[in-house]
Amino acid sequence: MTIAFPGERGAFSELAAKEYFGKKQRAISFPEFEDVFKVVANGTHPFGIIPIENSFAGSIYQNYDMLLESGLNITGEIYLKINHQLMVNQGCDLKSVKRIYSHPQAFAQCKNYLKKFRKEQLIAFSNTALAVKKIKDDQLRDTAAIASMQAVIDYDMKVIESNIEDNKGNTTRFLVVSKKENKTRSEQMKTSIVFSMKNIPGALFKALSVFALRDIDLDKIESRPVNTRGFQYLFYLDFKGDIRSTVSKNAVSHLQEITTFYRMLGSYPIGRVVQPKYSK
Amino acid sequence: MTIAFPGERGAFSELAAKEYFGKKQRAISFPEFEDVFKVVANGTHPFGIIPIENSFAGSIYQNYDMLLESGLNITGEIYLKINHQLMVNQGCDLKSVKRIYSHPQAFAQCKNYLKKFRKEQLIAFSNTALAVKKIKDDQLRDTAAIASMQAVIDYDMKVIESNIEDNKGNTTRFLVVSKKENKTRSEQMKTSIVFSMKNIPGALFKALSVFALRDIDLDKIESRPVNTRGFQYLFYLDFKGDIRSTVSKNAVSHLQEITTFYRMLGSYPIGRVVQPKYSK
Repeated sequence: MTIAFPGERGAFSELAAKEYFGKKQRAISFPEFEDVFKVVANGTHPFGIIPIENSFAGSIYQNYDMLLESGLNITGEIYLKINHQLMVNQGCDLKSVKRIYSHPQAFAQCKNYLKKFRKEQLIAFSNTALAVKKIKDDQLRDTAAIASMQAVIDYDMKVIESNIEDNKGNTTRFLVVSKKENKTRSEQMKTSIVFSMKNIPGALFKALSVFALRDIDLDKIESRPVNTRGFQYLFYLDFKGDIRSTVSKNAVSHLQEITTFYRMLGSYPIGRVVQPKYSK
Repeated sequence: MTIAFPGERGAFSELAAKEYFGKKQRAISFPEFEDVFKVVANGTHPFGIIPIENSFAGSIYQNYDMLLESGLNITGEIYLKINHQLMVNQGCDLKSVKRIYSHPQAFAQCKNYLKKFRKEQLIAFSNTALAVKKIKDDQLRDTAAIASMQAVIDYDMKVIESNIEDNKGNTTRFLVVSKKENKTRSEQMKTSIVFSMKNIPGALFKALSVFALRDIDLDKIESRPVNTRGFQYLFYLDFKGDIRSTVSKNAVSHLQEITTFYRMLGSYPIGRVVQPKYSK
């Protein structure tokens, strides 16, 4: 079994894949989020894993858009605690650091620590592990990277400041995507749906009422614009429960009486929160 | 009167300022969104204008965060139709274009047109007008920019492809911010609030019910994570009506019975949709 993930070896997405599927499964790296959706949709790899939301920086909206465009299903989720390390090549130190490479989300998550650097010193890369690889490959002596402890191990880097994230509860939610629907059942299930409604007063209230009337807990609601129709919205909603239960079936059938578009994205076991383990 | 806007001369934010306040008012450019919030909050300029939402690409989430952090009020809004022009220095043409400079949002809004270019050819700038200025200042012969028609005029550029945006209804909503609250009243008012709730089942449903029960139309709801408390959310909500009306007052007082945090961001006339006029 293979799992496509965005980024280089040592990326947080790879750690999430290993924690979710186990260390023995092969995780294959792809440069961009888009590539992961592509290789899963065209059948090259059975599973993909993508970050969808960070407790500090919020949702990764382009991945909501691509989830819908790709037609893939959500078959699982995992919450990964994120710690950021400031690292340099062996033999270098903090004093010689003239610039820092990382992903813009990592810069945002370490904003307080980074106050001692000027904005021009922070150089954006499309993922954190790629930033480390660049410093390693080019043997840069005056450049640091912000990335995971796994990247420290994989690229044999030296940590000069550890756990520099502002928010010590910093957690990222990853979704597992596949062409096939999830078949696993568990005690605690979650269902993700997407829908749009005519722009009538109180439409969202009516949509939420189909869940409230049945004591179904909502986990999250996210709105994204419908591309072709000005300021109209698609709503992405997660609720607690298995789509195969009677109460969930009734709720979504009630919902479809008032939606202009509806799709079930997946019904899957609620994810664990894990502190990743690092290894050679 | 002066209005602070993000970006260089010719930026869409400057066009929005001129359409909102009139051509005679002085619009002053600042490099980043953050700077605009800062110079209005510290009293250097009475007004600022910032983009908050695009009909195609969605909300600009960092500006929601900064709106709350800055403590500023929303005193107005305007919707600007956005057209993108591909431009080069005089005497250059499409054949010689090896790379394109622009803001990532502009690239996203012209995705279909840009399919003929490779990802490596698209270079991100912090605003569209800055991209044009760079090409002009450095007299680049092999580089194009995507920006507004106003930038074409201001920097005396040559348009090689006109209106290259994918979505012909492409519109951006701008907010006017100030230290003072808006005093203007009009027939059609809108009120923006932000609140959080204890994570109890159906909490959002209850919040929306205070508006639905009073036939108050909701315009928009946006969720952002509360930085320090894991996956808990702040809700940004716009509803139709003047905060000084009895029905609005009752609704928000009812809302505050169930919120853990509440702030009114502003109550202001509903904005017009304008097709910007360009001039020397």
